[in-house]
Amino acid sequence: MTKTFTLDPRLAADTLAVCDLPLSVVRLMNDCRFPWLILVPRRADAVEINDLEPADRLRLWDEIAAVSKVLEALAKPKKLNVAAIGNIVAQLHVHIVARRDDDAAWPRPVWGVGVAEPYPSSSAEALIASLNKRLVVAI
Amino acid sequence: MTKTFTLDPRLAADTLAVCDLPLSVVRLMNDCRFPWLILVPRRADAVEINDLEPADRLRLWDEIAAVSKVLEALAKPKKLNVAAIGNIVAQLHVHIVARRDDDAAWPRPVWGVGVAEPYPSSSAEALIASLNKRLVVAI
Repeated sequence: MTKTFTLDPRLAADTLAVCDLPLSVVRLMNDCRFPWLILVPRRADAVEINDLEPADRLRLWDEIAAVSKVLEALAKPKKLNVAAIGNIVAQLHVHIVARRDDDAAWPRPVWGVGVAEPYPSSSAEALIASLNKRLVVAI
Repeated sequence: MTKTFTLDPRLAADTLAVCDLPLSVVRLMNDCRFPWLILVPRRADAVEINDLEPADRLRLWDEIAAVSKVLEALAKPKKLNVAAIGNIVAQLHVHIVARRDDDAAWPRPVWGVGVAEPYPSSSAEALIASLNKRLVVAI
Protein backbone atom coordinates (compact mmCIF):
# COMPACT_ATOMS: atom_id res chain seq x y z
CA MET A 1 0.00 0.00 0.00
CA THR A 2 1.35 3.45 -0.90
CA LYS A 3 1.85 5.64 2.12
CA THR A 4 -0.19 8.83 2.03
CA PHE A 5 1.55 12.20 1.92
CA THR A 6 0.80 14.50 4.84
CA LEU A 7 2.34 17.95 5.17
CA ASP A 8 4.71 18.09 8.12
CA PRO A 9 2.87 19.82 11.03
CA ARG A 10 5.68 22.33 11.59
CA LEU A 11 5.71 23.32 7.90
CA ALA A 12 1.92 23.58 8.02
CA ALA A 13 2.06 25.83 11.09
CA ASP A 14 4.74 28.17 9.71
CA THR A 15 3.20 28.65 6.25
CA LEU A 16 0.01 29.51 4.34
CA ALA A 17 -1.44 27.42 1.50
CA VAL A 18 -0.88 28.80 -2.01
CA CYS A 19 -1.69 26.00 -4.47
CA ASP A 20 -0.87 22.51 -5.66
CA LEU A 21 1.49 22.03 -8.61
CA PRO A 22 1.71 18.65 -10.39
CA LEU A 23 4.27 17.35 -7.87
CA SER A 24 4.49 19.83 -5.04
CA VAL A 25 2.38 21.71 -2.59
CA VAL A 26 3.29 25.41 -2.67
CA ARG A 27 3.25 27.22 0.66
CA LEU A 28 3.97 30.84 1.56
CA MET A 29 6.17 31.28 4.62
CA ASN A 30 4.08 33.39 6.99
CA ASP A 31 6.80 35.97 7.42
CA CYS A 32 6.23 39.26 5.66
CA ARG A 33 9.93 40.21 6.01
CA PHE A 34 10.77 38.01 3.00
CA PRO A 35 8.79 36.87 -0.08
CA TRP A 36 9.45 33.20 0.67
CA LEU A 37 7.83 30.16 -0.90
CA ILE A 38 8.27 26.51 -0.04
CA LEU A 39 7.75 23.57 -2.39
CA VAL A 40 6.88 20.27 -0.75
CA PRO A 41 6.75 17.28 -3.13
CA ARG A 42 3.69 15.17 -2.29
CA ARG A 43 5.77 12.05 -1.79
CA ALA A 44 5.56 10.36 1.59
CA ASP A 45 8.94 9.70 3.22
CA ALA A 46 11.04 11.73 0.74
CA VAL A 47 13.81 13.45 2.70
CA GLU A 48 16.63 14.00 0.20
CA ILE A 49 16.16 15.19 -3.40
CA ASN A 50 17.66 11.86 -4.51
CA ASP A 51 14.84 10.01 -2.72
CA LEU A 52 12.56 11.10 -5.57
CA GLU A 53 12.06 8.91 -8.63
CA PRO A 54 13.85 10.36 -11.71
CA ALA A 55 10.60 11.68 -13.24
CA ASP A 56 9.67 13.39 -9.98
CA ARG A 57 13.15 14.88 -9.68
CA LEU A 58 12.66 16.49 -13.09
CA ARG A 59 9.20 17.72 -12.10
CA LEU A 60 10.65 19.30 -8.97
CA TRP A 61 13.32 21.09 -11.01
CA ASP A 62 10.65 22.42 -13.38
CA GLU A 63 8.54 23.58 -10.48
CA ILE A 64 11.53 25.30 -8.88
CA ALA A 65 12.09 27.11 -12.21
CA ALA A 66 8.44 28.13 -12.52
CA VAL A 67 8.13 29.34 -8.92
CA SER A 68 11.44 31.19 -9.23
CA LYS A 69 10.16 32.98 -12.33
CA VAL A 70 6.94 34.01 -10.63
CA LEU A 71 8.72 35.21 -7.51
CA GLU A 72 11.18 37.21 -9.62
CA ALA A 73 8.38 38.86 -11.57
CA LEU A 74 6.44 39.67 -8.42
CA ALA A 75 9.18 40.72 -6.00
CA LYS A 76 11.96 41.92 -8.34
CA PRO A 77 14.59 40.58 -5.95
CA LYS A 78 18.28 41.35 -5.91
CA LYS A 79 18.87 37.58 -5.65
CA LEU A 80 16.92 34.36 -5.29
CA ASN A 81 17.96 31.88 -2.63
CA VAL A 82 17.01 28.30 -3.48
CA ALA A 83 17.71 25.62 -0.89
CA ALA A 84 16.83 22.17 0.35
CA ILE A 85 18.14 22.05 3.91
CA GLY A 86 15.82 20.06 6.19
CA ASN A 87 17.99 19.81 9.29
CA ILE A 88 15.00 20.54 11.52
CA VAL A 89 12.04 19.42 9.39
CA ALA A 90 13.15 16.26 7.60
CA GLN A 91 10.27 16.12 5.08
CA LEU A 92 11.75 17.12 1.71
CA HIS A 93 11.02 20.78 1.03
CA VAL A 94 12.66 23.45 -1.09
CA HIS A 95 12.88 27.07 -0.05
CA ILE A 96 12.72 29.78 -2.71
CA VAL A 97 13.32 33.17 -1.16
CA ALA A 98 13.33 36.52 -2.93
CA ARG A 99 16.05 38.61 -1.34
CA ARG A 100 16.42 42.38 -1.29
CA ASP A 101 19.69 43.99 -0.36
CA ASP A 102 17.87 45.96 2.34
CA ASP A 103 15.98 43.04 3.86
CA ALA A 104 16.22 41.95 7.50
CA ALA A 105 18.93 39.35 6.90
CA TRP A 106 20.93 40.54 3.87
CA PRO A 107 23.54 39.35 2.94
CA ARG A 108 23.12 36.40 5.32
CA PRO A 109 20.74 33.55 4.54
CA VAL A 110 17.26 33.94 6.09
CA TRP A 111 17.15 30.79 8.20
CA GLY A 112 17.14 31.41 11.91
CA VAL A 113 17.37 35.18 11.56
CA GLY A 114 15.16 37.09 14.01
CA VAL A 115 11.50 36.29 14.49
CA ALA A 116 8.94 35.75 11.74
CA GLU A 117 6.47 38.60 11.26
CA PRO A 118 3.13 37.12 10.17
CA TYR A 119 1.33 38.81 7.27
CA PRO A 120 -1.74 40.90 8.03
CA SER A 121 -4.47 38.58 6.71
CA SER A 122 -5.64 40.93 3.94
CA SER A 123 -2.16 41.29 2.45
CA ALA A 124 -1.53 37.54 2.66
CA GLU A 125 -4.76 36.94 0.74
CA ALA A 126 -3.82 39.44 -1.95
CA LEU A 127 -0.32 38.01 -2.32
CA ILE A 128 -1.59 34.43 -2.49
CA ALA A 129 -4.17 35.41 -5.13
CA SER A 130 -1.47 37.10 -7.17
CA LEU A 131 0.88 34.09 -6.84
CA ASN A 132 -1.88 31.75 -7.92
CA LYS A 133 -2.75 33.78 -10.98
CA ARG A 134 0.88 33.81 -12.12
CA LEU A 135 1.63 30.18 -11.24
CA VAL A 136 -1.23 28.92 -13.39
CA VAL A 137 0.45 30.51 -16.40
CA ALA A 138 4.04 29.60 -15.45
CA ILE A 139 3.61 25.89 -14.94
CA MET B 1 31.98 36.56 -29.07
CA THR B 2 31.20 34.21 -26.18
CA LYS B 3 32.45 35.52 -22.88
CA THR B 4 34.93 33.22 -21.18
CA PHE B 5 34.08 31.63 -17.85
CA THR B 6 36.44 32.48 -15.01
CA LEU B 7 35.98 31.17 -11.49
CA ASP B 8 35.09 33.98 -9.10
CA PRO B 9 38.28 34.92 -7.16
CA ARG B 10 36.56 34.59 -3.78
CA LEU B 11 35.29 31.10 -4.62
CA ALA B 12 38.74 30.22 -5.88
CA ALA B 13 40.35 31.43 -2.65
CA ASP B 14 37.95 29.61 -0.33
CA THR B 15 38.03 26.24 -2.11
CA LEU B 16 40.28 23.54 -3.56
CA ALA B 17 39.95 22.11 -7.08
CA VAL B 18 38.37 18.65 -7.33
CA CYS B 19 37.48 18.08 -10.98
CA ASP B 20 35.48 19.26 -13.98
CA LEU B 21 32.09 17.70 -14.72
CA PRO B 22 30.43 18.21 -18.14
CA LEU B 23 28.87 21.51 -17.01
CA SER B 24 30.37 22.44 -13.68
CA VAL B 25 33.64 22.88 -11.94
CA VAL B 26 33.64 20.94 -8.65
CA ARG B 27 35.43 22.58 -5.74
CA LEU B 28 35.95 21.45 -2.15
CA MET B 29 35.32 24.13 0.46
CA ASN B 30 38.59 24.38 2.36
CA ASP B 31 36.92 23.89 5.72
CA CYS B 32 37.45 20.51 7.34
CA ARG B 33 34.53 21.08 9.74
CA PHE B 34 32.09 20.09 6.97
CA PRO B 35 32.35 17.83 3.89
CA TRP B 36 31.24 20.62 1.56
CA LEU B 37 31.38 20.71 -2.23
CA ILE B 38 30.53 23.53 -4.59
CA LEU B 39 29.39 23.18 -8.19
CA VAL B 40 30.08 26.14 -10.45
CA PRO B 41 28.57 25.89 -13.95
CA ARG B 42 31.14 27.06 -16.50
CA ARG B 43 28.82 29.68 -17.94
CA ALA B 44 29.99 33.27 -17.86
CA ASP B 45 27.49 35.69 -16.30
CA ALA B 46 25.09 33.04 -14.94
CA VAL B 47 23.80 34.25 -11.56
CA GLU B 48 20.41 32.57 -11.11
CA ILE B 49 19.64 28.94 -11.96
CA ASN B 50 17.13 30.23 -14.51
CA ASP B 51 19.93 32.07 -16.32
CA LEU B 52 21.07 28.67 -17.65
CA GLU B 53 19.78 27.34 -20.97
CA PRO B 54 17.29 24.48 -20.46
CA ALA B 55 19.84 21.80 -21.41
CA ASP B 56 22.36 23.24 -18.94
CA ARG B 57 19.72 23.41 -16.22
CA LEU B 58 19.15 19.69 -16.65
CA ARG B 59 22.88 19.02 -16.63
CA LEU B 60 23.21 20.96 -13.38
CA TRP B 61 20.41 18.93 -11.79
CA ASP B 62 22.12 15.69 -12.85
CA GLU B 63 25.43 16.90 -11.48
CA ILE B 64 23.80 17.87 -8.18
CA ALA B 65 22.35 14.34 -8.01
CA ALA B 66 25.70 12.70 -8.79
CA VAL B 67 27.70 14.82 -6.35
CA SER B 68 25.05 14.28 -3.66
CA LYS B 69 25.32 10.53 -4.14
CA VAL B 70 29.11 10.59 -3.86
CA LEU B 71 29.05 12.81 -0.78
CA GLU B 72 26.46 10.55 0.87
CA ALA B 73 28.52 7.45 0.19
CA LEU B 74 31.69 9.08 1.45
CA ALA B 75 30.48 11.03 4.48
CA LYS B 76 27.34 9.11 5.51
CA PRO B 77 25.66 12.36 6.57
CA LYS B 78 22.56 12.77 8.69
CA LYS B 79 21.30 15.23 6.03
CA LEU B 80 22.48 16.87 2.83
CA ASN B 81 22.07 20.62 2.46
CA VAL B 82 21.78 21.73 -1.17
CA ALA B 83 21.60 25.44 -1.89
CA ALA B 84 22.11 28.18 -4.44
CA ILE B 85 22.37 31.39 -2.42
CA GLY B 86 24.88 33.80 -3.92
CA ASN B 87 24.16 36.91 -1.86
CA ILE B 88 27.87 37.60 -1.49
CA VAL B 89 29.40 35.87 -4.54
CA ALA B 90 26.98 36.45 -7.40
CA GLN B 91 28.49 33.86 -9.79
CA LEU B 92 26.04 30.94 -9.91
CA HIS B 93 27.23 28.20 -7.58
CA VAL B 94 25.53 25.38 -5.73
CA HIS B 95 26.55 24.23 -2.28
CA ILE B 96 26.24 20.56 -1.37
CA VAL B 97 27.08 20.05 2.28
CA ALA B 98 27.10 16.75 4.15
CA ARG B 99 25.78 17.46 7.63
CA ARG B 100 26.30 15.48 10.80
CA ASP B 101 24.12 16.06 13.85
CA ASP B 102 27.27 16.72 15.88
CA ASP B 103 28.92 19.14 13.46
CA ALA B 104 29.93 22.70 14.31
CA ALA B 105 26.70 24.29 13.06
CA TRP B 106 23.98 21.65 13.46
CA PRO B 107 21.02 22.16 13.16
CA ARG B 108 21.69 25.60 11.69
CA PRO B 109 22.87 26.03 8.10
CA VAL B 110 26.64 26.29 7.71
CA TRP B 111 26.90 29.70 6.08
CA GLY B 112 28.53 32.33 8.22
CA VAL B 113 29.03 29.99 11.17
CA GLY B 114 32.41 30.39 12.89
CA VAL B 115 35.68 30.41 11.01
CA ALA B 116 36.73 27.95 8.32
CA GLU B 117 39.35 25.41 9.40
CA PRO B 118 41.55 24.63 6.37
CA TYR B 119 42.36 20.96 5.70
CA PRO B 120 45.85 19.74 6.47
CA SER B 121 47.24 19.38 2.94
CA SER B 122 47.69 15.60 3.08
CA SER B 123 44.07 14.97 4.12
CA ALA B 124 42.77 17.36 1.46
CA GLU B 125 44.73 15.44 -1.17
CA ALA B 126 43.38 12.10 0.03
CA LEU B 127 39.79 13.39 0.12
CA ILE B 128 40.05 14.96 -3.34
CA ALA B 129 41.50 11.74 -4.76
CA SER B 130 38.66 9.77 -3.24
CA LEU B 131 36.03 12.23 -4.54
CA ASN B 132 37.53 12.06 -8.01
CA LYS B 133 37.52 8.28 -8.11
CA ARG B 134 33.84 8.16 -7.12
CA LEU B 135 32.72 11.07 -9.34
CA VAL B 136 34.12 9.44 -12.46
CA VAL B 137 31.77 6.51 -11.85
CA ALA B 138 28.76 8.56 -10.71
CA ILE B 139 28.50 10.97 -13.63
